[in-house]
Amino acid sequence: MVLNYPDGRLYSDDIPKKPAKQVRTTPPSKRTAQTQKKNNFANRGMRFEEAINESNAYYLSRNLAVIHKKPTPIQIVKVDYPRRSAAVIKEAYFKEASTTDYNGVYKGYYVDFEAKETKNKTSFPLKNFHQHQITHMNACRNQGGITFVLLWFSQLQRCFFMDSKTLDRHWQAQATAKKSIPLQVIEAESTEIFLGIAPRIPYLDALDHYIALKEQEHDN
Amino acid sequence: MVLNYPDGRLYSDDIPKKPAKQVRTTPPSKRTAQTQKKNNFANRGMRFEEAINESNAYYLSRNLAVIHKKPTPIQIVKVDYPRRSAAVIKEAYFKEASTTDYNGVYKGYYVDFEAKETKNKTSFPLKNFHQHQITHMNACRNQGGITFVLLWFSQLQRCFFMDSKTLDRHWQAQATAKKSIPLQVIEAESTEIFLGIAPRIPYLDALDHYIALKEQEHDN
Repeated sequence: MVLNYPDGRLYSDDIPKKPAKQVRTTPPSKRTAQTQKKNNFANRGMRFEEAINESNAYYLSRNLAVIHKKPTPIQIVKVDYPRRSAAVIKEAYFKEASTTDYNGVYKGYYVDFEAKETKNKTSFPLKNFHQHQITHMNACRNQGGITFVLLWFSQLQRCFFMDSKTLDRHWQAQATAKKSIPLQVIEAESTEIFLGIAPRIPYLDALDHYIALKEQEHDN
Repeated sequence: MVLNYPDGRLYSDDIPKKPAKQVRTTPPSKRTAQTQKKNNFANRGMRFEEAINESNAYYLSRNLAVIHKKPTPIQIVKVDYPRRSAAVIKEAYFKEASTTDYNGVYKGYYVDFEAKETKNKTSFPLKNFHQHQITHMNACRNQGGITFVLLWFSQLQRCFFMDSKTLDRHWQAQATAKKSIPLQVIEAESTEIFLGIAPRIPYLDALDHYIALKEQEHDN
């Protein structure tokens, strides 16, 4: 389904967070203030996403896990096939994803996650998530997959691993409770991931911890 | 990495097999004979891919498995953000994939596969596969995932489930042996999938059979 934006709003979450050099947008003078703000957000987002992609490349190169980011879904409308050169997509639109961004396999486990960030310093807004992501993670968990989110507080430079069951509890409680998860709740209910050099975001350590806890529960 | 086609050849395997109505290409009169041939191939390919996508939707809706086709990777070069309407991608290129097309989770197993078809009636040409697909499937298998290919003989209307270890054996033997796998070898080494109505390609049955065999091996 192609997204429509009748009010001119950009749906930044679904626009790929490419580094500026790869995207030639309309000149700044022609952009609305809102577009600029959203583009900045997208650029900020890139650093966290890039760090995860680098970590995945690290894990893959050492045969530790096979986890990839899925390509951004695009609805292609018009393609030109010039002679003697590559096919050029001349008209296409961003589509709404039906899954999360990352999945793969680790020690026999199906692994599926979403990575999100906030500028907030005291809580993580739930509006960063979409219903289809929660639904997808719940469906994967019901099939025996391990699903979670990586939460990044960009101002605090702190990263947390929260399993999707815990996230879902907060998501469900939105109607009657808070629209964001306080940092101290995240500290209590998640595993903090301390940034490294290689991999930059060693999230498999948090995953190991989670798997060990799950197996303990299963044994008891 | 953006693919270059210095000889004007189209790399049909990496071009999304969209139904004709979704893609407005250059008028037929302006296409080269080669482009037309490749487009026809792409259209033919759609039916098998669509049948798999429909089967995945069926399995998902009944909570039997969560398996999705990955979006085609696209390198976006230029995006316009017209006011009061959706962001439009004005220039983009098809990128080479680094994984297979399908993955997901089934009964706790990580599942990863590629779907390929041939017009041939007596053998399946190995040129349908790419090294990166073989490498990816081997890496996933080493992490405990289940990896396979669905082979479709469009003229015979027959579909086979071949595990990736068997495929890899034929792939490795290419240098000294045949460049295609004879149908009678496929019949002996694969599980035939008989087409149905819902799901159209009941490949989870073949997967169950494969898992049972694997567990038997493991027990002995």
